[in-house]
Amino acid sequence: MRVLGIDPGLRNLGWGVIELQRSKLMHIANGRCSSGQGKLSSRLLSLHQQLTHVFETFRPHTAAVEQTFVNKDAKATLKLGQARGIAVLVPAQFGLSVGEYAPNAIKKTVVGIGHADKVQIEHMVRMQLPGSNPKSSDSADALAVAICHAFHLQSSGVLAEALHS
Amino acid sequence: MRVLGIDPGLRNLGWGVIELQRSKLMHIANGRCSSGQGKLSSRLLSLHQQLTHVFETFRPHTAAVEQTFVNKDAKATLKLGQARGIAVLVPAQFGLSVGEYAPNAIKKTVVGIGHADKVQIEHMVRMQLPGSNPKSSDSADALAVAICHAFHLQSSGVLAEALHS
Repeated sequence: MRVLGIDPGLRNLGWGVIELQRSKLMHIANGRCSSGQGKLSSRLLSLHQQLTHVFETFRPHTAAVEQTFVNKDAKATLKLGQARGIAVLVPAQFGLSVGEYAPNAIKKTVVGIGHADKVQIEHMVRMQLPGSNPKSSDSADALAVAICHAFHLQSSGVLAEALHS
Repeated sequence: MRVLGIDPGLRNLGWGVIELQRSKLMHIANGRCSSGQGKLSSRLLSLHQQLTHVFETFRPHTAAVEQTFVNKDAKATLKLGQARGIAVLVPAQFGLSVGEYAPNAIKKTVVGIGHADKVQIEHMVRMQLPGSNPKSSDSADALAVAICHAFHLQSSGVLAEALHS
């Protein structure tokens, strides 16, 4: 089963694709969609087009998005929310269900503790997905989301269901 | 010129279409897209489909979205942001530029003061758009956004540009 993870952001949206075969994880691809400096509408359209292209290219069977929000800054939270809207919409347009995981749940799955920093996450992503060489920290985070989703599907027994839906 | 205004929200997204002929405003239609109770991905997909249908039906020449954010509640702001992402994406997918107006700018245009309440807004929308009978307060707010955008285009002299783009 092919799993796509997304780390949403308006400026940079990280994505990572992995393959889950029985209990083995393999890296397929990772990258990031950047929205440039233009008007909000052009930036969201660009993210939608780039992410749609990723789905068309790698045809994942399931997807998951990090469940982040910024507590202190309403403007930053709104910006993130707008990008997150696109990140959740695109998999739904391909008929996929979208897993959502809180950052500490992702860290706990990938690193073993809920408060790991970015360096630790990237290190563990490289360990668990040999040859992945994440192109950016957004891509590493997105691969971590994909790993978390894959483990969740495996352990919750919905793997077969997801494969045959 | 046909102007579409949007009042974004995850549960209910209001929309209103008006026609600007020389300096005269006319009501065309208003309504709201509701996203139900399901998963976030299904709700955003549903909003995208309903709003796309509104654009296909009324073929506006330009669109505008209210620039709201909730200051105190990060979760509510994130939800609103996700819906707002869809509200800004759809016009961009139809090749339209998207105006953005702060709530007090909209109120100042429609009611004359920046701190008007919902009852006043709906009253003035009904006055300025005879026969509009907004179907909900979201629809009234969306018509107010459309009125604000129409006046802004008129007064800023970009009307001709918008019409011929």
